[in-house]
Amino acid sequence: VAELLVVRCSGHLGDGQRRYPRWELDNGTLRRLLAEGVGGVILLGGSAAELQQRLRQLRAWAAQPLLLCADVEEGVGQRFEGASWLPPPLTLGRLHRREPQRALDLAERYGHCIGEEARTLGLNWVLAPVCDVNNNPANPVINLRAWGEDPDTCAALTTAFLRGAQAEGVLCCAKHFPGHGDTAVDSHLALPSLEHDRARLERVELPPFRAAIAAGVASVMTAHLLLPALDAERPATLSPAVLEGLLRRDLGFGGLIVTDALVMEAIAARHGGGEAAVLALEAGADLVLMPEDADAAIAAIVAAVESGRLERGRLEASRERRRRALAGLVAAEESAGPDAAQPLGPLTTGPRPEHRQLAEELVQAGLHRRGGRIHPPQGSGTADQADGGGAAGEKAGLNLVRIDNALQCPVLPLGAPALTLPAAAGFRPCLLEPRSPSPWSGDPQAPLALDRLGPGPVLLQLFLRGNPFSGGAVEAEPWAEAVVQLQRAGRLAGLVVYGSPYLWERLEPLLTPTTPAAWVSAQIPVAQQAALEALGIGTGTRAGAFTD
Amino acid sequence: VAELLVVRCSGHLGDGQRRYPRWELDNGTLRRLLAEGVGGVILLGGSAAELQQRLRQLRAWAAQPLLLCADVEEGVGQRFEGASWLPPPLTLGRLHRREPQRALDLAERYGHCIGEEARTLGLNWVLAPVCDVNNNPANPVINLRAWGEDPDTCAALTTAFLRGAQAEGVLCCAKHFPGHGDTAVDSHLALPSLEHDRARLERVELPPFRAAIAAGVASVMTAHLLLPALDAERPATLSPAVLEGLLRRDLGFGGLIVTDALVMEAIAARHGGGEAAVLALEAGADLVLMPEDADAAIAAIVAAVESGRLERGRLEASRERRRRALAGLVAAEESAGPDAAQPLGPLTTGPRPEHRQLAEELVQAGLHRRGGRIHPPQGSGTADQADGGGAAGEKAGLNLVRIDNALQCPVLPLGAPALTLPAAAGFRPCLLEPRSPSPWSGDPQAPLALDRLGPGPVLLQLFLRGNPFSGGAVEAEPWAEAVVQLQRAGRLAGLVVYGSPYLWERLEPLLTPTTPAAWVSAQIPVAQQAALEALGIGTGTRAGAFTD
Repeated sequence: VAELLVVRCSGHLGDGQRRYPRWELDNGTLRRLLAEGVGGVILLGGSAAELQQRLRQLRAWAAQPLLLCADVEEGVGQRFEGASWLPPPLTLGRLHRREPQRALDLAERYGHCIGEEARTLGLNWVLAPVCDVNNNPANPVINLRAWGEDPDTCAALTTAFLRGAQAEGVLCCAKHFPGHGDTAVDSHLALPSLEHDRARLERVELPPFRAAIAAGVASVMTAHLLLPALDAERPATLSPAVLEGLLRRDLGFGGLIVTDALVMEAIAARHGGGEAAVLALEAGADLVLMPEDADAAIAAIVAAVESGRLERGRLEASRERRRRALAGLVAAEESAGPDAAQPLGPLTTGPRPEHRQLAEELVQAGLHRRGGRIHPPQGSGTADQADGGGAAGEKAGLNLVRIDNALQCPVLPLGAPALTLPAAAGFRPCLLEPRSPSPWSGDPQAPLALDRLGPGPVLLQLFLRGNPFSGGAVEAEPWAEAVVQLQRAGRLAGLVVYGSPYLWERLEPLLTPTTPAAWVSAQIPVAQQAALEALGIGTGTRAGAFTD
Repeated sequence: VAELLVVRCSGHLGDGQRRYPRWELDNGTLRRLLAEGVGGVILLGGSAAELQQRLRQLRAWAAQPLLLCADVEEGVGQRFEGASWLPPPLTLGRLHRREPQRALDLAERYGHCIGEEARTLGLNWVLAPVCDVNNNPANPVINLRAWGEDPDTCAALTTAFLRGAQAEGVLCCAKHFPGHGDTAVDSHLALPSLEHDRARLERVELPPFRAAIAAGVASVMTAHLLLPALDAERPATLSPAVLEGLLRRDLGFGGLIVTDALVMEAIAARHGGGEAAVLALEAGADLVLMPEDADAAIAAIVAAVESGRLERGRLEASRERRRRALAGLVAAEESAGPDAAQPLGPLTTGPRPEHRQLAEELVQAGLHRRGGRIHPPQGSGTADQADGGGAAGEKAGLNLVRIDNALQCPVLPLGAPALTLPAAAGFRPCLLEPRSPSPWSGDPQAPLALDRLGPGPVLLQLFLRGNPFSGGAVEAEPWAEAVVQLQRAGRLAGLVVYGSPYLWERLEPLLTPTTPAAWVSAQIPVAQQAALEALGIGTGTRAGAFTD
């Protein structure tokens, strides 16, 4: 029974380094569970180098071959610093409208990049691609993670992704079945409902999953959402009609069905941890991801077998599917054995040049600019600012940067172009995040309290994409009105939106024809460099004086 | 000649991960310089696991045994996440006033902790202890890094530290000679001057260095400061009177003299990179740390030898000192060879329990509380807040947190007690850092713009210690007046100062006898937990709902 569980731990080695100690097992418990036969681990956090050591450790602790997975949808570096971090998949969904073949080629390289780096570090199961069709711009959980906004694009690009990733010898996972694109509720916080009938599902939601299955995807992850047309009571994750009926029978999927995390509120708020695991297996799932309490889940499943509620043969079939999936990987895993001289293989000095090149190509593919060049603020000659010198107060312009969380902001490491390039051009930084002192005046017509932010032309940089957990707080901020206000005051030096194309599409029509502005799908430093250089600041500048 | 250089690189593996690309060599240059014979590397950044791999890589690239060092004055975890991070040395300087023997025991354990972890990861040279006497509270660079505020305490504690660290088989470094404690200028930004005569130096500055030399310290680092009584023209780093005269002859030091980083503005602003290296060697230094340009430094030194300006024998003597220092370490280094099964040795699952225990004892030793317990804000029963639930706006109290830099704030990782414990007690967070929208009203009598921060009782948490590079901006903030303002308005729920005892000593007398308040010398999460629990919030609470 334990084999069918996938538990979560930190990619860090030490218990004290766990970021989510409530959700990440401590080493003592983890070691015990692996010795008792738990068959899978999902990891989050830590550097690529640390992850590799962590995975060796887990394999040494385990009684059997493990499924080792991570949510590395946008590159292994999205979760584990030091590996490649790529612009989000929707970049290619947009490119596919203009240059379909190039988008397909890039999607395949995207898959190769993730598959190769995952395997190098010791992961054997990539929890990608997202097969959801992002046809609801208000979707708070999918958004840029999707490969497109229509079924055909999603199907074509996820197939190309799978071709690349699977060729590297890792398992992949199509998610979130039967389609999480057309929801406006965050399933981390509540249970969304999808009110479509079967015909509409066939037309929109299912094609990417059918394509992924046809491409040989090893696993499918279930969505925590209610589909009243298929099952009026149980969310997809727990619904026999969706899993046994639609996925296994109608779509003919013979691989591993894995639940999305059972600790998510959509499930956890309705069922005890043990009961949710039993319901998922009863519904047809093979693997249970992140049960709230692994021991309780094992006990509940065992009790369900003993009481006859769950058939033993049902679980044997799941074990067999798991065994088959792992068997195909043995060769790959053996070739990734430890090598102390070149411990990270191709990652020994960071991502390979081909992968850095891929990230840059994707940035360019997801970059759109309009208007003129940004003018450096008056009174700050770039000459004497070239080294970023001078205290913040001396800079005549304002670099207003909206981020989600300053304390966990991997896109703004020290030296991030979004801060250093404007600083060198004379824009002093002002960071806004939900816990900053409010920049809002309360006046709907002039929402920015400009007196608090100081004088000068404003470079506005918005790092916003549909992020889970925000509960809609970001969407409520009056950025459209703020843009109008700054423009009316003659103070909008430039605008960059990093992330959401939907926010860009709301703001862009408000700009005068000459206002320098750009949208770039990615938030990573290489995207900042590209967007700012496209607007004329940053070329030839370098970071400030010696520090630390 | 190259042997005498210590160049800087990132502890990260990838060039793209460097935080200070201007100061940290890229892998191509680094590999070339090591192959050409450069003899030392100072590292900064990356996790402990990554550092270990990095150091193996550097040794593989080098033509000879390397000196591998880092500024791990407050634990290896201060610089490399995953190892032990300890409260600052001045914690023990203060404890020494009350319990001298306990302070000495803890200082020795402090040394053991750093020495053991450094050696485990592959560092062989610990750039500690700071031997400066912190007798100037306005000192922006030494402050809590010092072991005491008087010469005897510094001498006793640094000797105890050295006993512990050296027993672990690493070289140590007494710094910054002849004493950087009584300066108020940041040598990262300008050249400070110490106007004392020789008699005063003998009385105050020199005793800790004499003690460290007597304890067998392997190296001494020079200070970038002017001592007109000894040398009217050249800063200590470049002064024959200070290095050959005072340190070698008068103090009888026969070990390695290493410069502080030559890229620091105090030196770099006055001399070209090559010339500074030649001047340092001429003055008596053996090793040149972080020359602005390693190739230029090598070329300048070679030219100086060829022109007869530098004696060849002088450099031979330095090489011989370096060789002797490394020879003593060979045994230790061999025992730290790679072991794929337990790659991090004692650090395999984070710091050893003894070291975690040491950190906690030091936190308690550096914790001072007064006044009553913090009252949870009205209208936010702790019962329904126990899971940290509810949006920020619903919280009746305000947790005002002043930090240096939200984007690089390792003391506030996800789940940091300074944020989660007050949140669970009903205090919504507000983060202030130099780039936040201003919280200041401009009114000297009521400096906090409370209308921008919202209503409710205020828990004020100040993460401030004498930090380099701030240029005095922090010291200019009117926290004393803000405390009076909040207290006058009946809104000061509590105060915690993390770091500077001098700030605490300014604020504490302003508090009413019942105001709950604490000073703790450390800023690390375990110190946050201890300080807030001492004030009555945090016991039994845990972090919020599922995320990420």
